[in-house]
Amino acid sequence: MVKVGIVGGTGYTGAELLRLLAKHPQAQIGAISSRTEAGRAVAELFPNLRGYLDLEFSEPDAAPFGDCDLVFFATPNGTAMRMAPALLDAGVRVIDLAADFRLKNVEAWEHWYGMPHACGDLVAEAVYGLPELHREAIKGARLVANPGCYPTAVTLGFLPLLEAGGVDLGYLIADAKSGLSGAGRKAAVGSLMAEVGESFKAYAVTGHRHHPEIRQTLSTIAAAEVGLSFVPHLVPMIRGIEATLYARLLGSPVDLQLLYQRRFAAEPFVDVLPAGSHPETRSVRGGNLCRIAVAQPLGGGVVVIQSVIDNLVKGAAGQAVQNMNLMFGLDEAMGLDLIGLAP
Amino acid sequence: MVKVGIVGGTGYTGAELLRLLAKHPQAQIGAISSRTEAGRAVAELFPNLRGYLDLEFSEPDAAPFGDCDLVFFATPNGTAMRMAPALLDAGVRVIDLAADFRLKNVEAWEHWYGMPHACGDLVAEAVYGLPELHREAIKGARLVANPGCYPTAVTLGFLPLLEAGGVDLGYLIADAKSGLSGAGRKAAVGSLMAEVGESFKAYAVTGHRHHPEIRQTLSTIAAAEVGLSFVPHLVPMIRGIEATLYARLLGSPVDLQLLYQRRFAAEPFVDVLPAGSHPETRSVRGGNLCRIAVAQPLGGGVVVIQSVIDNLVKGAAGQAVQNMNLMFGLDEAMGLDLIGLAP
Amino acid sequence: MVKVGIVGGTGYTGAELLRLLAKHPQAQIGAISSRTEAGRAVAELFPNLRGYLDLEFSEPDAAPFGDCDLVFFATPNGTAMRMAPALLDAGVRVIDLAADFRLKNVEAWEHWYGMPHACGDLVAEAVYGLPELHREAIKGARLVANPGCYPTAVTLGFLPLLEAGGVDLGYLIADAKSGLSGAGRKAAVGSLMAEVGESFKAYAVTGHRHHPEIRQTLSTIAAAEVGLSFVPHLVPMIRGIEATLYARLLGSPVDLQLLYQRRFAAEPFVDVLPAGSHPETRSVRGGNLCRIAVAQPLGGGVVVIQSVIDNLVKGAAGQAVQNMNLMFGLDEAMGLDLIGLAP
Amino acid sequence: MVKVGIVGGTGYTGAELLRLLAKHPQAQIGAISSRTEAGRAVAELFPNLRGYLDLEFSEPDAAPFGDCDLVFFATPNGTAMRMAPALLDAGVRVIDLAADFRLKNVEAWEHWYGMPHACGDLVAEAVYGLPELHREAIKGARLVANPGCYPTAVTLGFLPLLEAGGVDLGYLIADAKSGLSGAGRKAAVGSLMAEVGESFKAYAVTGHRHHPEIRQTLSTIAAAEVGLSFVPHLVPMIRGIEATLYARLLGSPVDLQLLYQRRFAAEPFVDVLPAGSHPETRSVRGGNLCRIAVAQPLGGGVVVIQSVIDNLVKGAAGQAVQNMNLMFGLDEAMGLDLIGLAP
Repeated sequence: MVKVGIVGGTGYTGAELLRLLAKHPQAQIGAISSRTEAGRAVAELFPNLRGYLDLEFSEPDAAPFGDCDLVFFATPNGTAMRMAPALLDAGVRVIDLAADFRLKNVEAWEHWYGMPHACGDLVAEAVYGLPELHREAIKGARLVANPGCYPTAVTLGFLPLLEAGGVDLGYLIADAKSGLSGAGRKAAVGSLMAEVGESFKAYAVTGHRHHPEIRQTLSTIAAAEVGLSFVPHLVPMIRGIEATLYARLLGSPVDLQLLYQRRFAAEPFVDVLPAGSHPETRSVRGGNLCRIAVAQPLGGGVVVIQSVIDNLVKGAAGQAVQNMNLMFGLDEAMGLDLIGLAP
Repeated sequence: MVKVGIVGGTGYTGAELLRLLAKHPQAQIGAISSRTEAGRAVAELFPNLRGYLDLEFSEPDAAPFGDCDLVFFATPNGTAMRMAPALLDAGVRVIDLAADFRLKNVEAWEHWYGMPHACGDLVAEAVYGLPELHREAIKGARLVANPGCYPTAVTLGFLPLLEAGGVDLGYLIADAKSGLSGAGRKAAVGSLMAEVGESFKAYAVTGHRHHPEIRQTLSTIAAAEVGLSFVPHLVPMIRGIEATLYARLLGSPVDLQLLYQRRFAAEPFVDVLPAGSHPETRSVRGGNLCRIAVAQPLGGGVVVIQSVIDNLVKGAAGQAVQNMNLMFGLDEAMGLDLIGLAP
Repeated sequence: MVKVGIVGGTGYTGAELLRLLAKHPQAQIGAISSRTEAGRAVAELFPNLRGYLDLEFSEPDAAPFGDCDLVFFATPNGTAMRMAPALLDAGVRVIDLAADFRLKNVEAWEHWYGMPHACGDLVAEAVYGLPELHREAIKGARLVANPGCYPTAVTLGFLPLLEAGGVDLGYLIADAKSGLSGAGRKAAVGSLMAEVGESFKAYAVTGHRHHPEIRQTLSTIAAAEVGLSFVPHLVPMIRGIEATLYARLLGSPVDLQLLYQRRFAAEPFVDVLPAGSHPETRSVRGGNLCRIAVAQPLGGGVVVIQSVIDNLVKGAAGQAVQNMNLMFGLDEAMGLDLIGLAP
Repeated sequence: MVKVGIVGGTGYTGAELLRLLAKHPQAQIGAISSRTEAGRAVAELFPNLRGYLDLEFSEPDAAPFGDCDLVFFATPNGTAMRMAPALLDAGVRVIDLAADFRLKNVEAWEHWYGMPHACGDLVAEAVYGLPELHREAIKGARLVANPGCYPTAVTLGFLPLLEAGGVDLGYLIADAKSGLSGAGRKAAVGSLMAEVGESFKAYAVTGHRHHPEIRQTLSTIAAAEVGLSFVPHLVPMIRGIEATLYARLLGSPVDLQLLYQRRFAAEPFVDVLPAGSHPETRSVRGGNLCRIAVAQPLGGGVVVIQSVIDNLVKGAAGQAVQNMNLMFGLDEAMGLDLIGLAP
């Protein structure tokens, strides 16, 4: 039984962690903190958890995180980097669902996140928690940087192609779309239903924080700097990310379908669909799967990859639990055997 | 006063034509036909029109289209090509909102639309009704092929760039997203709210009928065959298309913002937003505008263009009325001075 | 030409007023104020207005409201009561779209709105701006209390029945449902798309501010205190209110359809649908109509009335413009001839 | 291990049964039939089930239903009544998720469902499968009539109140609202996203098939004929039913909160919320719970009850599995321990 703590459990990734951990056979929630909701029952804030979790939010300072085997940070950026060092020193392992340890270049991190980094020395140690890429390193990690939601969908979609080579690395395109839960559970006019319902738009066209994160991983995979255009969009729905990826093929044709199926054949949470498929976000709603389809429209020289995830599960809390399972020697899929809720 | 007829007024483009024409100061609806709804009051089928239109659907054969100055076809593909010749012979001008006259290559048309063309000889005469490109020809046209919804958004978005040159024509990308009214008002499991609500997906990745239409126009503009990847997506909303377009810049930089503003400065229905903008589909809901923003993310060599329209207005009925205005010497904006309905 | 001012134009009722006034042939916006957005172009905040309104928000104190013929308050509750007296003294007429002057019982107002009333003496003078009930008084009014959105839908729905009598006044039921724009354009977790999308709930079951407002008007109409259960609900959509009303018939049957049709025959903005109809909110989206259907299910002793409005138009800004038209001797429907936007 | 068959698994209740049974520890799907999809993999039709169910649809006549312990009918009305007799004769137990065996009055059934009943003699034997009311009878039943979705929400909401007495039975009101999955997975213009999205309306005001079903059960509970007004409404969402119920209290007050809590204290799938709560449909999305709140607004003589369920789970497939568990001596909650998916 892994004793876990959650710092900051009042957002959507926190709520989703709670939903998953409440049914996890080998995890026990030892502490959950919230500065704003301390003393309140978790199930009062999240009524769907009523009857499943008998737990109260604690003040961060009062929560017994030091007694935990693992602490998840479901906090805004900039929190984990301040609290993680002491926890690690106390022998507690850490998974940060925010961005504090995702970028290896601390200077770049400070640029994109607009604050000085509090523990740059730990950045090098942190393992980027994408199991499909770093499974072995995750198993032994003390500190895991859980990937962003867009980066998960985009990276898994490009992964086999970039490993195989043969595409123009200078001109990759990721046109990504996300539901509103990705914007978090915070009061903001821009996320009101009356503002985003029945409408569609791109945002952050000239620069999004997930861009350097994606480029970092893709460049590692390709063993070369990649040129990537990344444009995120807001979809009037709650959960789900779809990324449509474009790359130009160089040289002779390969069997892309076979390439993708082989690369992910042993992966428990990547499902390559048959040729001609169009994965829907709802097929993975509430589940930890990434579903991918690959196509070469009209026989042209462009590969089009579609990749869908539930941003709160494979894009956040589910992937964090998957990482926990790996870190503690449990079955990687434990507690994550979740059928997508459709319709 | 232009006396107009509408063939097939029971779909969404028909309903939208009725909404616009009901308030048009110089149009009078002389006849509207529907095989399935003949004898029924229009306002019974479309309750929003109650009190604004006192009109009944007629049998197609009984409707006095021959007495009209102009007949709109808001029918499935393949209807206009059978009825247009006789109308034109009778001196009636025609705007087809379906696809019968959009592709200049009749063989390609027959391939994509899966039927023999009934009047291939008229195809050459038909004017592609995109006023921003063919205004003068439209004024004198007997037969106008009203552009498709995706083609309108994509073509207007690429127009200044392709006219100016300096981009890699071999690798243009149009990632387009549409609300459900684009799928038409016909019983289909795939368009049920319980199927498409709260979900997002691409469709027709390996080939969509609007692809050859877009390529035809872009190739004309560029005076060269263009390579285009076009992927349409379904957005869980009703009205609106957003197209995010990508092109690789060759050679020295140009002031894209200025290029776009100049190209569309005199256009009544294209609004180039300030640099850094993200046009929302709701800003044009119910209106005839195409709003465009152009950006060069991170100073890279890729241009990203966002283009939004209401698929039923500038993407269908509104553009048809705009074409009617041009054909009959009216103010081009007459009856189309419609503020977008937001929120 | 009526010179109008708008205090507080950054919410949804303010934005809707702007949309309507921008096209009103006899209104000219002389000033619009916002403490938070002073100096900013209106069209920057509301991009749908780009090209239709060349106007900037002013500081409230700097805006020349004293030069206006009429000032609309589209502010939170408690603002109009502080500014209205000076304006009225200066000869400026006032329409308050908030609740400051709706309840005739000042004590009750202070209880429900949680603050002392700043000008209780004006409350008696204020005319409740429901033209279908107080048309003549509105024409001569200096100060109009524009009705709430729920009260408009519910009151118009009950009006003919209560005027006619013959129902159990002790047990009226109004089960009302509203889209999210009714919650206003303010940052609040409870109105986020991720909180209210794909879900439905009642709220304020034990007491809503519109309850005393509705009871006050219904009691006036019935000339007796009515017993009313009023339960509002949140619908995952943006615009629209539907109220389903229930009343128990006493005594002999009447022709309800005829009763309703006669009562509203001359009303420009109330449309009684044929027997058996089910009005949809979308049929009045963006328009100023209230559409009503009345039924007696299964021949029983209960009347069921359905009443739909666009909460931002007939439930707020549209009704305010209707009141303005009456106050200034204009055609009551001027600027309000708006077809509902469907689909 | 219970060997089950499913007749007609291509609708939403069928898909939901499959989702639940795929993870049920003591159920094994022996056969699933569909006339239209015979030969097709289940996971091709319902991609969320990919990897969880390796099953093909069979022709109804070819499916080995006779070898099953239990057959679920997830078919249109009128199918179960034709196939059930032979199955029962063969010793197979039956749960009908459609309406064939819900109304005890065969004549009334024939009136509401518009066809002659094929096995009226079995109607008397059939047990109405609401465990909270008929648990013991369900355990021994050969044939269970699974309740309708609205009837489940409304009946559970009224249950404690009618058992306790003290309300005016002649004037009960149930104002119910449902998401679109309740309309089924069949091509119909009226359920298109472009028709029902962003809109709200009542339907079937003058008579809905669930009305006699609800009245039958409520009258049994009250041991007297009840007068019930039932008005269903369409909510622009996919899953969920909310019913707001109104009843007039007679005589002296009771502690309603306590009454409800006691009545359902031992029920695994009814959750009475604290006083002052407003249950949201999303809190039970995907789960088998009915969440209820009871209130007495403003201390008046009217009780207002709010009741929410997931129409596809507690309102259909989940309740069917709950009935199966009871019939086969399994833990009543087996396979139904499902946390609501929110946000």
